[in-house]
Amino acid sequence: MGASEFDLIARYFAPLAAAAPGAFALTNDAALVDVPDGRSLVTTVDSMVAGVHFRDEDRPTEIAAKLLAVNLSDLAAMGARPFGYLVAASFPQTVEEAWIAEFAAGLGSEQAIFGISLLGGDTTSTTGPLTLSLTAFGHVPSGKCLQRATARAGDDIYVSGWLGDAALGLDILSGRLQASSTEARAQLVRRYLRPTPRLALGAALLEMELASAALDVSDGLVADLGHMARQSGLAAGIEWAALPLSPAARAQLARDAALRQRVLGGGDDYELVFAAAPVGRADIAKLARRLDLPLTRIGSLSPGSGVSVRDEAGRRIAVTKAGWAHF
Amino acid sequence: MGASEFDLIARYFAPLAAAAPGAFALTNDAALVDVPDGRSLVTTVDSMVAGVHFRDEDRPTEIAAKLLAVNLSDLAAMGARPFGYLVAASFPQTVEEAWIAEFAAGLGSEQAIFGISLLGGDTTSTTGPLTLSLTAFGHVPSGKCLQRATARAGDDIYVSGWLGDAALGLDILSGRLQASSTEARAQLVRRYLRPTPRLALGAALLEMELASAALDVSDGLVADLGHMARQSGLAAGIEWAALPLSPAARAQLARDAALRQRVLGGGDDYELVFAAAPVGRADIAKLARRLDLPLTRIGSLSPGSGVSVRDEAGRRIAVTKAGWAHF
Repeated sequence: MGASEFDLIARYFAPLAAAAPGAFALTNDAALVDVPDGRSLVTTVDSMVAGVHFRDEDRPTEIAAKLLAVNLSDLAAMGARPFGYLVAASFPQTVEEAWIAEFAAGLGSEQAIFGISLLGGDTTSTTGPLTLSLTAFGHVPSGKCLQRATARAGDDIYVSGWLGDAALGLDILSGRLQASSTEARAQLVRRYLRPTPRLALGAALLEMELASAALDVSDGLVADLGHMARQSGLAAGIEWAALPLSPAARAQLARDAALRQRVLGGGDDYELVFAAAPVGRADIAKLARRLDLPLTRIGSLSPGSGVSVRDEAGRRIAVTKAGWAHF
Repeated sequence: MGASEFDLIARYFAPLAAAAPGAFALTNDAALVDVPDGRSLVTTVDSMVAGVHFRDEDRPTEIAAKLLAVNLSDLAAMGARPFGYLVAASFPQTVEEAWIAEFAAGLGSEQAIFGISLLGGDTTSTTGPLTLSLTAFGHVPSGKCLQRATARAGDDIYVSGWLGDAALGLDILSGRLQASSTEARAQLVRRYLRPTPRLALGAALLEMELASAALDVSDGLVADLGHMARQSGLAAGIEWAALPLSPAARAQLARDAALRQRVLGGGDDYELVFAAAPVGRADIAKLARRLDLPLTRIGSLSPGSGVSVRDEAGRRIAVTKAGWAHF
């Protein structure tokens, strides 16, 4: 590739930092950030590796959108309002400038949606696959955030949006699953490639003090709910029949009931799971209407440990894939 | 490797976050950080890839130390006082738990030196080389920081410590250069493997308002000074005879004068280069004594552009390698 690192940064990435004076057009050693008075900083980092977290053939705009979304989802799970991010990219020697241009354009259109700015970054070369790491920044009311370990016995368990779409979308993309229709295919694949971080929900749950605990569904419902239950010292019980499924997911499950496991164990939905005292049910229903986002009560927390899923007849459903550990 | 991602994090990385309550023992989706009143946040990210930025045979403790140092050096260049960091690591499938344990131990001993904490991170697998990305956090007096673009015509140019040691150390490690003595070898190699971020210097320059501009020498003196000159719209002139060389570097240059190019163009020293008005000379000399760190005046800035290096006779020295661009 002909352009130097400095040229590439000036050409494609500096425009993404134009609205943030503390990014100094990406020409300094670091970025200067003012956290608003009365707010605390929230920060998280997540990496994506070609061939592991995305497919080599995915479009750079889709990869950019997902990289940003998975990190913003972590901020959403803490109840934070995002304001900026850093990107570290290790490019194979074979990367083409057009790829980088499209990747930067993808970041640009996503950051416009969320009203955030690129603040800085680093580009290096690698002899391995493209590796992207994004650090996201948000803020919360001073000293407060949603946590995983603070659920209480008797709390309801809620999930936002729809479960299982992303796992089914990945299965379709990978050729392991045939879509029930063209529309279902588009919807499920889109949910895998373009997850929506539930930022407005997370911030509202924190600021309205409606949730006792929260996290995002990245590794799968049962695995992630397991983290909340274990860290809170409680058992989580959920009802299969209560789980919110999209029409597209319902159509797939009507053809193959075994796909239930993908809904329970598959990851990448980036919905929020949260615990809330039953007294807040009416307020949560109101919030769902205000956000135009289903918030579905799927079970409850009780003394004990583990996560159990029961079907309509009260029989326990075994979950064969409790999320996905990277090693 | 037998251990899950969660086990590894709990075993090796959570202890590094024990002093930071907002890290939640690395069990939440993100970290909560309070920036002190009257201070702004400064943040930066730098990645290191095996085979590109370090050698496969380097010890994990050395890699950890360097990863932290190169990022803290960026904070130093902004005048920031560090307080924490995030690490994103993509491990090859073949990584051994002992490697991860030693890497974490290396982070632990370094963070103790700097009085900072791990705040969070991410671990993934990769089919390529080990890839490490570190985001560092520091703070500065509200809204103030050292910058590159703010040097003024007539300013002196200073550099901290010694130049060229790291490049010569890398040459020795790579077998391209024979050390003049066992002691010289140890000193030069150590300066390559274990650079010292000049944090106290950066913070003092900012808080005492002694420097008009600053950056750290990561790509080589001429290349980095070139950034400052270009961004400030000035020319930089430096005197070869004024450059601070360690006894070990002097011994190497006595054997081969061509190594001058490595001093001027080699990177990895992580010293600070800064511009300062001549009126501050006495204060800078005092600061050097207080920090027990040489602060050497090596030239000055004037109207014009470019970086020129002159020898004792006033002849211009051509620089063959103006730093290192990653592409």
